[in-house]
Amino acid sequence: MTTGQTPLTMQDAILTLQNYWSANGCMITQPLNTEVGAGTANPSTALRVIGPEPWSVAYVEPSVRPDDSRYGENPNRLQTHTQFQVILKPDPGNPQELYLGSLEALGVDLTAHDIRFVEDNWASPALGAWGLGWEVWLDGMEITQFTYFQQVGGVSLSPVSVEITYGLERILMNLQGVSHFKDIAYAPGITYGEVFGQNEYEMSRYYLDDADVDTNHRLFDAYAAEARRLLDLELPVPAYLYVLKCSHTFNVLDARGAISTTERAKAFSLMRGLTHESAKLWAARRTALGHPLGVTPERAPAVRAPLPTVPGTETLLFEIGLEELPYADVVATTDAVRESVTAKLAATRLRHGQINVMATPRRVVVTVERVEPREADTEKTVRGPKAAAAYKDGAPTQALLGFARSQGVEPDAVRTVTVKGTDYVAVTREEPGRPATEVLSDLLSEVVSGLRASRNMRWNDPALSFSRPVRWLLALLGRTPLPVTVSALASGTTTRVHRTAADPVVQVTTAEGYSHFLKMHGIVLEREVRYDAVVRGAERLAAEVGGRIDAEGQAGLIDEITDILEFPHPVRGSFEERYLDLPASVLTTVMRKHQRYLPVLDGDRLMPYFVTFANGACDDDVVRAGNEAVLRARYEDAAFFWRADLKVAPADFRARLDQLTFEDRLGTVADRATRIAALALELAGRAGLAEDTTATVRRAGELAKFDLASQMVVEFSGLAGVMAEEYARRAGEPEEVARALAEMELPRSAGGALPASDAGAVLSLADRFDLVTGMFVIGAVPTGSSDPYGVRRAAIGLVNVLRAVPATAAVGVSDGLRAAAARYTAQGIEVPAERLTEAAELIARRYEQQLTDAGHEHRLVQAVRVWADRPATGDRVLAALEQHVETAEFGALVAALQRVVRILPADELKDADRSLLTAPAELRLAEAAEAVRGVLQGREDDLTALVGASAPLVEAIDAFFNEVLVMDLDLEIRAARLSLLADVARLTSRTLDWSAL
Amino acid sequence: MTTGQTPLTMQDAILTLQNYWSANGCMITQPLNTEVGAGTANPSTALRVIGPEPWSVAYVEPSVRPDDSRYGENPNRLQTHTQFQVILKPDPGNPQELYLGSLEALGVDLTAHDIRFVEDNWASPALGAWGLGWEVWLDGMEITQFTYFQQVGGVSLSPVSVEITYGLERILMNLQGVSHFKDIAYAPGITYGEVFGQNEYEMSRYYLDDADVDTNHRLFDAYAAEARRLLDLELPVPAYLYVLKCSHTFNVLDARGAISTTERAKAFSLMRGLTHESAKLWAARRTALGHPLGVTPERAPAVRAPLPTVPGTETLLFEIGLEELPYADVVATTDAVRESVTAKLAATRLRHGQINVMATPRRVVVTVERVEPREADTEKTVRGPKAAAAYKDGAPTQALLGFARSQGVEPDAVRTVTVKGTDYVAVTREEPGRPATEVLSDLLSEVVSGLRASRNMRWNDPALSFSRPVRWLLALLGRTPLPVTVSALASGTTTRVHRTAADPVVQVTTAEGYSHFLKMHGIVLEREVRYDAVVRGAERLAAEVGGRIDAEGQAGLIDEITDILEFPHPVRGSFEERYLDLPASVLTTVMRKHQRYLPVLDGDRLMPYFVTFANGACDDDVVRAGNEAVLRARYEDAAFFWRADLKVAPADFRARLDQLTFEDRLGTVADRATRIAALALELAGRAGLAEDTTATVRRAGELAKFDLASQMVVEFSGLAGVMAEEYARRAGEPEEVARALAEMELPRSAGGALPASDAGAVLSLADRFDLVTGMFVIGAVPTGSSDPYGVRRAAIGLVNVLRAVPATAAVGVSDGLRAAAARYTAQGIEVPAERLTEAAELIARRYEQQLTDAGHEHRLVQAVRVWADRPATGDRVLAALEQHVETAEFGALVAALQRVVRILPADELKDADRSLLTAPAELRLAEAAEAVRGVLQGREDDLTALVGASAPLVEAIDAFFNEVLVMDLDLEIRAARLSLLADVARLTSRTLDWSAL
Repeated sequence: MTTGQTPLTMQDAILTLQNYWSANGCMITQPLNTEVGAGTANPSTALRVIGPEPWSVAYVEPSVRPDDSRYGENPNRLQTHTQFQVILKPDPGNPQELYLGSLEALGVDLTAHDIRFVEDNWASPALGAWGLGWEVWLDGMEITQFTYFQQVGGVSLSPVSVEITYGLERILMNLQGVSHFKDIAYAPGITYGEVFGQNEYEMSRYYLDDADVDTNHRLFDAYAAEARRLLDLELPVPAYLYVLKCSHTFNVLDARGAISTTERAKAFSLMRGLTHESAKLWAARRTALGHPLGVTPERAPAVRAPLPTVPGTETLLFEIGLEELPYADVVATTDAVRESVTAKLAATRLRHGQINVMATPRRVVVTVERVEPREADTEKTVRGPKAAAAYKDGAPTQALLGFARSQGVEPDAVRTVTVKGTDYVAVTREEPGRPATEVLSDLLSEVVSGLRASRNMRWNDPALSFSRPVRWLLALLGRTPLPVTVSALASGTTTRVHRTAADPVVQVTTAEGYSHFLKMHGIVLEREVRYDAVVRGAERLAAEVGGRIDAEGQAGLIDEITDILEFPHPVRGSFEERYLDLPASVLTTVMRKHQRYLPVLDGDRLMPYFVTFANGACDDDVVRAGNEAVLRARYEDAAFFWRADLKVAPADFRARLDQLTFEDRLGTVADRATRIAALALELAGRAGLAEDTTATVRRAGELAKFDLASQMVVEFSGLAGVMAEEYARRAGEPEEVARALAEMELPRSAGGALPASDAGAVLSLADRFDLVTGMFVIGAVPTGSSDPYGVRRAAIGLVNVLRAVPATAAVGVSDGLRAAAARYTAQGIEVPAERLTEAAELIARRYEQQLTDAGHEHRLVQAVRVWADRPATGDRVLAALEQHVETAEFGALVAALQRVVRILPADELKDADRSLLTAPAELRLAEAAEAVRGVLQGREDDLTALVGASAPLVEAIDAFFNEVLVMDLDLEIRAARLSLLADVARLTSRTLDWSAL
Repeated sequence: MTTGQTPLTMQDAILTLQNYWSANGCMITQPLNTEVGAGTANPSTALRVIGPEPWSVAYVEPSVRPDDSRYGENPNRLQTHTQFQVILKPDPGNPQELYLGSLEALGVDLTAHDIRFVEDNWASPALGAWGLGWEVWLDGMEITQFTYFQQVGGVSLSPVSVEITYGLERILMNLQGVSHFKDIAYAPGITYGEVFGQNEYEMSRYYLDDADVDTNHRLFDAYAAEARRLLDLELPVPAYLYVLKCSHTFNVLDARGAISTTERAKAFSLMRGLTHESAKLWAARRTALGHPLGVTPERAPAVRAPLPTVPGTETLLFEIGLEELPYADVVATTDAVRESVTAKLAATRLRHGQINVMATPRRVVVTVERVEPREADTEKTVRGPKAAAAYKDGAPTQALLGFARSQGVEPDAVRTVTVKGTDYVAVTREEPGRPATEVLSDLLSEVVSGLRASRNMRWNDPALSFSRPVRWLLALLGRTPLPVTVSALASGTTTRVHRTAADPVVQVTTAEGYSHFLKMHGIVLEREVRYDAVVRGAERLAAEVGGRIDAEGQAGLIDEITDILEFPHPVRGSFEERYLDLPASVLTTVMRKHQRYLPVLDGDRLMPYFVTFANGACDDDVVRAGNEAVLRARYEDAAFFWRADLKVAPADFRARLDQLTFEDRLGTVADRATRIAALALELAGRAGLAEDTTATVRRAGELAKFDLASQMVVEFSGLAGVMAEEYARRAGEPEEVARALAEMELPRSAGGALPASDAGAVLSLADRFDLVTGMFVIGAVPTGSSDPYGVRRAAIGLVNVLRAVPATAAVGVSDGLRAAAARYTAQGIEVPAERLTEAAELIARRYEQQLTDAGHEHRLVQAVRVWADRPATGDRVLAALEQHVETAEFGALVAALQRVVRILPADELKDADRSLLTAPAELRLAEAAEAVRGVLQGREDDLTALVGASAPLVEAIDAFFNEVLVMDLDLEIRAARLSLLADVARLTSRTLDWSAL
C-alpha cells in the first residue's frame, strides 16, 4: 500500500469488486455449491461461455486445491483460496483497462506498483478448455489470470469470452502489506487466520493424510456413472455437476498420492469426454430454448475513410497496437512483419527507402523512408488477332473491329507486334501508378490480417486471429493520416503509451522521429537498447552490493526480460540469508524460472539479492517489497519441502517409488528404476568402464529416481535429479554417486547440458533406452504434434550423449535397445523385435535431423546415416567425408562405386562360382577388392584410409566395366561377375551410403 | 413497492444487504461449496454458534430443497432458493430493530407494509438443533426466519445467537411486484428466469425423476462412513462436511420417494449423532485453540437506582416489554402474571385496590389501583425463658438478663405472656411496614424472573428465561418512577409502541389511563376489544362484497388473530375465481391454517375473497396486493398438484402405495391398506351392517389410503382423506364410497368431527385398530411426551367413534384388536396376546380420561370402567349410575355388594358343594341371586333394571350375613357359602365395579 488511506479488508475488497463489476455491466452471482478447483469450472463460466448469448458475470469462488494443502502453515498456499471471477462476453474491447480500473478501485496505486501482463496460455485438460492470455503480476506476484477463452469442453467459442480471475488472498496480502495469508484483515478486527485457520488445518489433514482412498475411488466412479446417465437423459446441467464432483474427488485422490500416471490419463480422458458432451448438450439446449439471453451481434467491418492526397515523398509510420505479446512472439513478429512489408512493397511499383520494423510487447512499428507519392507509371500491351486476320484488303476486318471495341480504342490506334515470328495487332496503354496512399492502405491491411504466431487466438474481431488482440492501428504518411482498415479496425493518429500514464492515449502528428517520440513517453522501441538496459541496470544494482550478474550464462532469460517490457526499470531486492541454506539450484530455479529475476552472485556464490525489472517508472520501494514478499513465500514453500524431505533417507524414498505408477502396462516407477539400474550396469560393462566408475553406476542405480518421491520434486518437477544430488550428498552418499544421480537426468532439453562423468552418461543412456523401449512396446509413439511421454526428447538425449561422451563409443543404439528390451522381458513384458527396429529408426532420424540442423549437406548426412547406430563414429566419418568430398580422387571413387551398385539387381544374388572369373580385369578387381578389405578390416569408419587406398580399386572397377560384359549370356558367368561386384559394394557400404552422394 | 424509486434488482438487494450488515458489524463470507438445505447448515452457523466466541456474520446461501423442485413452473417454489443468512452472536439486544433497518435499506416502506413476527419454533432434527423465534411475514408472505438459537448438535448455546434468514426470492417478488420468481429482475435487463430457468428445470428433473436411487444410497453410506472416520480422527470440520453431504443425499432420495419411514428415522438418528459429535468436537477444539476469536463477556446485572419516596396512595403501572409472544402465550401469561402478582401482594401487608393484568403479544401490563404508600405496621412478640426461670427472688436471673440483652432491651422492658398455661417472659416490638416502593420493586422483580411459558428460551440476559425475550420494563407508582431490576434489566419510564411509529419509544409520565395512552399510539391492550375488532372488521369487509364470515365456527382462529396483533386492521383481498374449482377444503386449509385468513362465504359457499389483518395502520392496497400474491402462489401450488393428481386413477394411486413404507417391520402402506380393508369388512359383519353399506365398505377398503400417494397429500398431509374423497368422486366412485374414504380419516384430533356414515365409522375403526395393534407389536408405545406414530390419538379416535356411532355398538374394543391381530398374523407378523391386553388397557385409559375430563365423578368413572370394551354402553351405564347414585336404594345395594366382595378371598375359590347350603338365609340368597340373574340375563348394562330388582337381593344379603357365619370352621361349608357369595358378586360385577363406589 502506498496511499495514505487504510487498506481494504478482504470483505470490503470483495464488496468493492462486486460493486465495480456490477457498475460495469456484470451480473453478480454466487459461488457454486459444490467443490470446484477454480471459478472457471463453475457453470457460470464453463457452460455459459458457450454459444452466442451475451453473458457478463462476476462472482466469488472459493477454489479448492487439495494439492495446495499446507496445514495453514505456508504463507501463500491454501487448500481453499478465494477467486474472484469475471466473465465478459463478448470481449468489450478494453478488458485490460477495465481490469486495471478494478485494481484502482481496490486502492492499488497503479503508478507506484509494477503491474505486468505475463504470457500465460491457459489450458484445462479436464475441462477440454483452452485460452490465451496472461498472468497479471503485481510486483512479481501473480494476482490474476486473464484469459481470452477459445474453447471449452472441446467446443470452439464464438464470441470469445474474456475471463478475469483474481487471486484475492494474494492481492490482499500485497494491499495490506502482510506476509502471511493468516494475517490478512478479513473484516474489521478479524484476521483471515482467525476465521479460516482451523479450516485450513483440518481440511489439509483430510486432503493430505486422512481422506479414505477406497471411498474416494468409489465416489469417483459413482459420480462418473451418474454424469454418464444424465448425459444420456440429455440433462447437461446436473451431468456437468457430477463431472465437477468427479474432478474434485480426483484432486483429493491425487493429493493423497493415490493416482498413477495411467489412472490420471484415464481419468482426464473420462472427464474431458463427459465435459465435452455436457458442453455440446448445453449448446444444443440453449439453441432449442431459442437463446433466452439473446444473440451477440457481430461487429461490423470498419469503413475506410476517403484516401488523402500526399504530393511529396514522405516517411510512412505504421503501428500495430497490441495487448502484451508473449516474449517469443516479439522477435518473431518483428521478422515476419518485416518480410511481409518488404515482399508486398516489392510487388508494387512504389519506390521507397529503408524499411524498418521494431517491436515491443505492445506494438509493432513499421517505418518506410522516402515513400514516393505514387507508383511509377508503366505500359501494358494487349495482343489482338493475327495481323493477317486483322485486315482484309487493307481494311479492318470484323476481328480487328471487335478487338478495338473491346479495348475501347479506335481501330487505327492498334499497332503490330511480332511474337515468335508471327505478327499480331495489339494495343498499348499507359498504366498510371496508383497513389501511395492507396497502395499502402491495401498493403498494410493485408499485413495486419496476415499476422500469425505459433499459437493464435480470436477476440472480439470478426476476422482477425493472432497471438494476442490487435487493439489499434496508427498510420501516418508524413503528417498525413493514412486510412487503413482491417476487419472492424480503422487506423487513427493516436497511439497508446503506458496505461498508467496521465494520458494513456496520445496524438501522433508526424511519422518522423517516432522512436524518439515514444522514448519521451517512456517506451523503448529498439530491442537492443532494451537488452542493454537490462544488462547494465542489473550489473549496476548488483555492483552496489558488491555482486555481479551472469549476463552471458543467462542470455535466454535476458532475452525474455527484454521482450516483456517496454521500458526495463531495474529494482534490486533481497531475501533472508537463511534461505541460502537451500540448494542454490532450488533458489535459482525459483528466481529465474518462476520469477524472471536475475540472481546476484559473489564470484560463483549466490548472494541474498536479486534484480527484477518493472515496466517503466514505479515506486521502487513498493515494487521491491512486493517482489520480496513473493520470493519469501516461494522460498518458504521450498524450505517446507526441503525440511520435510531431509527427514527421509534416499533409500526410503526409493522404496516409496513402488507407490508411483510409471505406466499401467510398464509397472511402477520402482520397476523402471530397477530396470535402469540393471541396464546401466550392463552398458557400463559394454563401455568397459573402470571398476570404481562401475561401483558408482551400481550405487546410483540402486537409488535411481528416488527423488521423484520427494515433496520438492513433486512440486518442482524440473528439479528431478538436482534434488537427488542434493539429498544424496546430505545423506552421505559418495560425491560421484550424488553427481551421477543428477547426471542421469541430463540432458533436460535438446540443447541442454550433458553428463560430465562416464557413470552419469551411462545412467542417462539407461534411463533413455528404457523409456524409448517401453513406449514403443505400448505404442505411445510420438506423432507430429504430440509426444506426451517425451520419447522424442529422450531419443535426442540418447544421440547427444552418444555423440559427446567418448566412453560410450562402444555402445550401439541397437545394443542399448536390445539390452533394455531384455530387462522388460525379465519383468514379463514381451518386446517384439519390430518395435526395436522402429525405435532404432526413430533415433536414427533424430541423429539425421541434428546433422541437418547443424548445417551439414543433406546428401552427406544421408551418406553417413549408415552410422546412425554409433553417432560418434558417424560424426568422425562425416568430418572425413566433408574433407574428401570435393577431391577428384573421392569423386572417382564415388562414381566407380555407384556404377557398381547401379548394375546390381535389387533381389538377392544366387550362389555363384567365382572360379569362372579368369579374365585379367576380373582378377584385377578381385585383387583390388581384397586390398581394400585389408585396409578396412576392423576400421570401416576410417574413410580417409579408404580414400587413400581407393585408386587401385577405382582403376580396377573402370577396367572391369570397360573390358568385361557383366551381363553375359551365360548365366553362370553373369552370376559370378555380379557376385564380385556385390563383394565390392558390400565391402564399402559399411563406411558410407555411396548411393546418397 | 410503494416508493417512487425503481425497485432493487436481486443482485443489488444482495449487495445492499451485504453492505448493511457489514456496516452493522458483520463479517461477510461466502456460501458453502457443498450443497446445503439452508444457510443454517453452513458451518459458519452450525458450528460457529457453539461456544463462547463472538461471531457476527452474513452470507448468501443458495439452499437446495430437492423436494421443492417444480421444474421452474411454480411461481414460488424452487429446488434452489437463495437465502441471506445473518448470525449475531451475542444477541445485540435489538436484533428485530436491526432487521427492520435492513428491510428499509432494501427499500421496503415499513409504514405501508404489514410486517409481522409470527411465532415459529424452529427445529432441525438432522442438525440436532432448535431455537425459538418467528417467521417474519411481509404482507402475509414469509420472507424471513428469525430465531434465537438455543441448541445445535445437541450442544446448548451460550451465548445465544440470533439467526436471521431472509428468503430473497420472496422479498424480491414483493419488492418488484412480480408474481413469478422467473420474472424477478435479477440484474439490469436480465430476469431470474433467464438466468436460472434451465437450471431449475434440469435439477428438478434430477431430483424428482432421474436421480439414481442405488447410487445415492451408496453415496449416503460412503459419506456417513467418511464422517465417522473423521470424527474418530478428531477432525470436526471435514467430518461435518460429510454430514452435510449425507443430508443432501438423503434429501435427494427423499424427493425421489425412496425413503421409508424407518429409513428416515434411522437416517435422522445417524445424522443427528454425527452432527452432535461434530459439534462437541468443534467445541473442544476451539477450547484447545484458546478461543481464537475471544470470549463473549457476560452482561452485568443491573444496579437498582435508589428507591424514591411516594407519600400518597397511587396506582401502580408495571409493563413487561416483550418481543412478539406466540399467540397461546398471551392469555397464559396474562393469567400467570395475574396470579403471581395477586399471590405475592397477598403475602405482604401492602393494602391496595383492584389488580388488572392485560397483555398483547408485545407487552404484559399490570396495574394495581390505590396502592398505599407503606405496608401496615405490625407488632412482633419474641418469647423468652419461662417466667419461673426469669426471676429469682423477684430479681432478674441470668436467663432473663441474657434474653433482654439478646433482644436489645432493658430487663424491665419485658412482659409476661401465657402460652398453653405456662408463663413466659417476652418482648413485643413494633414492626413498621416497608415502603410500597421497596415491596413492589422486589415483588415485581420476582414476577419477571418467575415468568415461564410452555417453551422457554434464553437470549442475551444472563439469568432470564421465557417464551421470548423481555426487552424493557416500565414501572410507575403514580407519576413516580419505580426502580425495578431483574438480572441485566432495569425499569424505566418509557414504553415501545409500533416499531414503525415515528417515535417508537415514548415517555410515560403517569400510571393513570395507560390503556388509553396506548390506544392513542394505536395499541389495543384489552383482549376482548381486539377480538371484537377482528370479528366486526371481518364481517364489515365481507358484507361489502355480499358475504359473511363464519365467526362462530372459527373461534380458535379468531383467538389466534386476536393474540398476534396489537391493533387488528382488517384488509380484504380476493383471489381468482378459477381457483374455486379446487376443493373448498384445500382452499380453506390454505387460508386458515397457512395464512390465518378468514374465508368469506356466500351462505356456505366459498367466495373468492378473504380477510386478513395487519398489525395497525398500513397502506391497504400494498398489503392486499402482497397477501393476494401469497395466496395466488399457494393456490398455484395446490392447482399444480390437483391437475397432476387428476391424471391418475385412484386404483393407480392405490397400486403405488407399495412403494411407500409404512413401518419397516409392518410392511408397506399398501400392506396396511389391505389389512384395513379386510378388517373393515369383518367389523362391518360384526356390526351387522346392511348389504349396500357393506358394499361401500368393501369398495372404500379397496381404495383405502390411496391418496397418500397423491402429490397434494404428500404436500398438504392434513388433506389425507379429504383428497381421497375429492379424487374418488371425480373418478366416478359412488358418493358413499367417496365419503367413506374421507371419513376413514376421522376424527383428526381429540375433539374432531366423527364419521357420519356407518361405512365411514367402520373404516375409521379399522384404520385405528390396525394402527394401535401394529404399534404395540413393534413396541412403539406412546410415552409421557412422545407419541411419534399418534397411537394415543388413534385410541382416542377409536373411543370417540365407538361412543358416538350406534351402528358400532356391537363392536368391542377387544374384538377389534383381535381381528386386527389376525390380519397381522395372516401377513406373517406374530401378535403376542399380552400386547393386545396392553393395547386394550391403553384404550380403556383413554375412555376413562375422557369421562373424567367431561366432569364425571372419579369414583363413578372407575365404577363403569368395566365397560371400557364397549364405551357406548359404558356411557349409558354411567348415565344411569349418576341417576341412581344418590338414592337410598342404590346406596343399600352398594353397601350390600361391597360387603359381599369384601369377604371374598383374593384367590380363586375351590370347587364347592352348593347342596350343603340349606339354611333359610342361604336358600333365600340363592333365590334372590337367581332372580337378579334373570333380570340381567343379556342386559348386564341395564343398571336401572338391576336397581329396580335389587331390594330382595339386598335384604337377602343382609339376612345372610346376619344369620350365617360365612367363615364356618367346616371348610366344605365355608366353601359353599363363599361360592354363593361369589356368584352374587360375579352376577353384578359385569354391570359395575361396585368396589369403586
